Amino acid sequence: FSLVRVKSTWKSKLGKKINKDTVDCVSAAKSYESITDRGTSWTVVSPITFTYKVTETHGLLDPSNDTLLLGHITDPQQLEDIRKSNKPIRRFVVIDQEVFQIYGPKLTDYLEANNVVYKIMPLPTTEENKSMETALKILEDVNNFALDRRTEPIIAIGGGVCMDIVGLAASLYRRRTPYIRVPTTLLSYIDASVGAKTGVNFANCKNKLGAYIPPAAAFLDLSFIQSVPRRHISNGLAEMLKMALMKHRGLFELLEEHGCMLLDTKFQADNTLYGHDSIKAASQATRIAITTMLEELAPNLWEDDLNRLVDFGHLISPALEMKVLPTLLHGEAVNIDMSYMVYVSHESGLLTEEEKQRIISCMVGLELPVWHEEFTMELIQKSLQDRLKHSGGLVRMPLPVGLGQA
Amino acid sequence: FSLVRVKSTWKSKLGKKINKDTVDCVSAAKSYESITDRGTSWTVVSPITFTYKVTETHGLLDPSNDTLLLGHITDPQQLEDIRKSNKPIRRFVVIDQEVFQIYGPKLTDYLEANNVVYKIMPLPTTEENKSMETALKILEDVNNFALDRRTEPIIAIGGGVCMDIVGLAASLYRRRTPYIRVPTTLLSYIDASVGAKTGVNFANCKNKLGAYIPPAAAFLDLSFIQSVPRRHISNGLAEMLKMALMKHRGLFELLEEHGCMLLDTKFQADNTLYGHDSIKAASQATRIAITTMLEELAPNLWEDDLNRLVDFGHLISPALEMKVLPTLLHGEAVNIDMSYMVYVSHESGLLTEEEKQRIISCMVGLELPVWHEEFTMELIQKSLQDRLKHSGGLVRMPLPVGLGQA
Ligand SMILES: NC(=O)c1ccc[n+]([C@@H]2O[C@H](COP(=O)([O-])OP(=O)(O)OC[C@H]3O[C@@H](n4cnc5c(N)ncnc54)[C@H](O)[C@@H]3O)[C@@H](O)[C@H]2O)c1
Ligand SMILES: NC(=O)c1ccc[n+]([C@@H]2O[C@H](COP(=O)([O-])OP(=O)(O)OC[C@H]3O[C@@H](n4cnc5c(N)ncnc54)[C@H](O)[C@@H]3O)[C@@H](O)[C@H]2O)c1
Ligand SMILES: [Zn+2]
Ligand SMILES: [Zn+2]
Repeated sequence: FSLVRVKSTWKSKLGKKINKDTVDCVSAAKSYESITDRGTSWTVVSPITFTYKVTETHGLLDPSNDTLLLGHITDPQQLEDIRKSNKPIRRFVVIDQEVFQIYGPKLTDYLEANNVVYKIMPLPTTEENKSMETALKILEDVNNFALDRRTEPIIAIGGGVCMDIVGLAASLYRRRTPYIRVPTTLLSYIDASVGAKTGVNFANCKNKLGAYIPPAAAFLDLSFIQSVPRRHISNGLAEMLKMALMKHRGLFELLEEHGCMLLDTKFQADNTLYGHDSIKAASQATRIAITTMLEELAPNLWEDDLNRLVDFGHLISPALEMKVLPTLLHGEAVNIDMSYMVYVSHESGLLTEEEKQRIISCMVGLELPVWHEEFTMELIQKSLQDRLKHSGGLVRMPLPVGLGQA
Repeated sequence: FSLVRVKSTWKSKLGKKINKDTVDCVSAAKSYESITDRGTSWTVVSPITFTYKVTETHGLLDPSNDTLLLGHITDPQQLEDIRKSNKPIRRFVVIDQEVFQIYGPKLTDYLEANNVVYKIMPLPTTEENKSMETALKILEDVNNFALDRRTEPIIAIGGGVCMDIVGLAASLYRRRTPYIRVPTTLLSYIDASVGAKTGVNFANCKNKLGAYIPPAAAFLDLSFIQSVPRRHISNGLAEMLKMALMKHRGLFELLEEHGCMLLDTKFQADNTLYGHDSIKAASQATRIAITTMLEELAPNLWEDDLNRLVDFGHLISPALEMKVLPTLLHGEAVNIDMSYMVYVSHESGLLTEEEKQRIISCMVGLELPVWHEEFTMELIQKSLQDRLKHSGGLVRMPLPVGLGQA
């Protein structure tokens, strides 16, 4: 049956019986009825379309820039109505505690200047309290704020941990409240802000609980990265390198050549040492990282397809990361996993000795660890077994075959 | 851009550049890039299709019936593989504690007879512990069971409370684990098992946290209803009456005429007093209730459309239900809300005096309360204000306009 709306009532109609003049709307959903001696069975097929924006911009906290408040709105009429209305905008903002230390005054000025009724909740967002308890704490405050889920997206400002927790909390509130991601680390800039995943750790397992609900929008401003510690720049470069190794030789060569400069300049424009070159390399690198990431994530938003290049470096690293917590950062654990896989590729004849050397050198140049004593054969075997179990009976293990190809 | 897969890599391609011979697959997802002086913006449009089955059957716990274990599988090849394989099936079952008291031995026999490796978790599923804490307790056990999210759906057997909590827990586990609903109350049979909603109470608000993730399948067997207390049959009849009033005059007349018999026979076939008539009315009533409910839910699975007939009786009742907890059952609170709205309709000239009388008499015949002292003007106003806030600025209030029309 097709499902058609006549006035405010939905009706099932066989395809040929639909008279477009008398129906208000034909749904994309369908239902199928089958009657057997065992009983009646209805099958519902209902598509839900997710639409979200990823926007690289600058001056996000400049009071004259209304991207943070209105950039997620796609309907021009709605946008105009809000701009004309003199009702103050209301926003609930969750922000990483350390980010609040640095950008708190700027954020407050921005909200005040735009006459926003707001509540800012600074959160100690570490991997250790990336938990459902933290999500519930956020939800209590959200509820007290009497947030309107139709028009008041929750804003998350911080690294991947902050965005993952807030994304999950928002997705649960009233079964779905829109949220906005503002990444402030390099890792979350090019990775966590691009896809649909949210999550918290549970039972000592990484991201064991979560949802696949994309943000209404992600607003990316490189200027936040200037205060990120050098080690965390390397951390983000690991996920960038992942995309380079899997599908973009140009990005690999860029990281190979300019890695050190990107670390020194922290992706900022106004660098006296490197001049204009630095911002060119920085914006090229983030752009390629984001577009390649989007290519892999958008067609597989809910990860139903098990063949995922973006899982490179993520087979054994989750177990390693949780085991040595808080010794290794996410990207560091990923890099150790990747460097092992590079050796696997080489041993299997998929990479030449020279390619292997270039990749390992590049990793070292990005100041990333390529080995860890807890990355044992036992851990590898346990992880691969677990992986096999969740791979529909086939080993799925993305491996580089040359530079920028998998 | 269209997103196409070439070998295992996704690439963005402009529509006209796609050569179908050289690509493995074209995704339904699209991405749009726009470059302004403010920066670059990518818009991702990605449809996710939900497919689920609602099956009315009998003998669900008859060892020769494999619906409970395999009825959710749609791929014939996969089904044959599983039937041929001698690997035992594994299932994690959460069951309402009272239901376990009655059907526990039958369930255990069923699982043993089918050589299933299982864990049964009986749960005290009351409205008071319909909470995230209970969901997390389930998840701990699920995790200890080392459940495979690809092939081992979680089974929920019980009323709406059990199905709502388990549905949410499953939806969170590894960002989505399939689950199966087996309703054992009339209310959950015709309502909670048909749609996509899951949820738990939070901050003293009904279903404040949840997700819109449909089950892989809902398996409905009327024989569970035989042990449901009479008051809970009335409770379920309230949601049935809702559908009748909103869109099916035939169902209304059936309830008007046979309501008492349905209460007496508890929707069972083998009744000496009423004979074959009883099962005819029972199966007609459930069938109409399910199909009308599916018509309204399937095109609006995520409730994005705010005009929802199924919200009739659900405007003021949630606040009432929570306020007097555990005095009123869900359907009872819904009925009090509906009876008030019937008066509103009458006062507004949308219902004749006779129609109003028939509806109220029918409610009384179904042994449902039509009034409560805590259903005050203050509560009504507060609820309608809250509703208005979440209705995009328009009052949306489904009202009957005659019998079986809204
Ligand atoms: N959802 C996804 O798709 C996805 C993708 C990749 C990673 N992740 C998750 O992201 C997390 C890692 O993210 P992360 O590396 O951003 O870690 P993080 O959020 O822990 O941030 C790292 C540290 O930097 C600080 N910080 C953040 N922004 C800063 C700034 N601008 N200046 C100074 N300090 C700043 C934080 O307080 C923190 O101490 C992991 O939990 C991982 O699982 C999620
Ligand atoms: N997800 C949805 O779309 C949806 C729709 C409607 C209602 N609901 C929710 O469902 C809940 C109400 O469901 P309910 O009325 O089924 O309540 P319930 O789950 O609390 O069950 C009612 C009582 O009947 C007992 N019981 C269940 N099956 C039995 C059986 N076969 N024999 C004897 N006793 C049995 C239970 O132990 C319980 O005491 C509410 O929380 C409501 O919010 C959800
Ligand atoms: Zn990662
Ligand atoms: Zn209801």
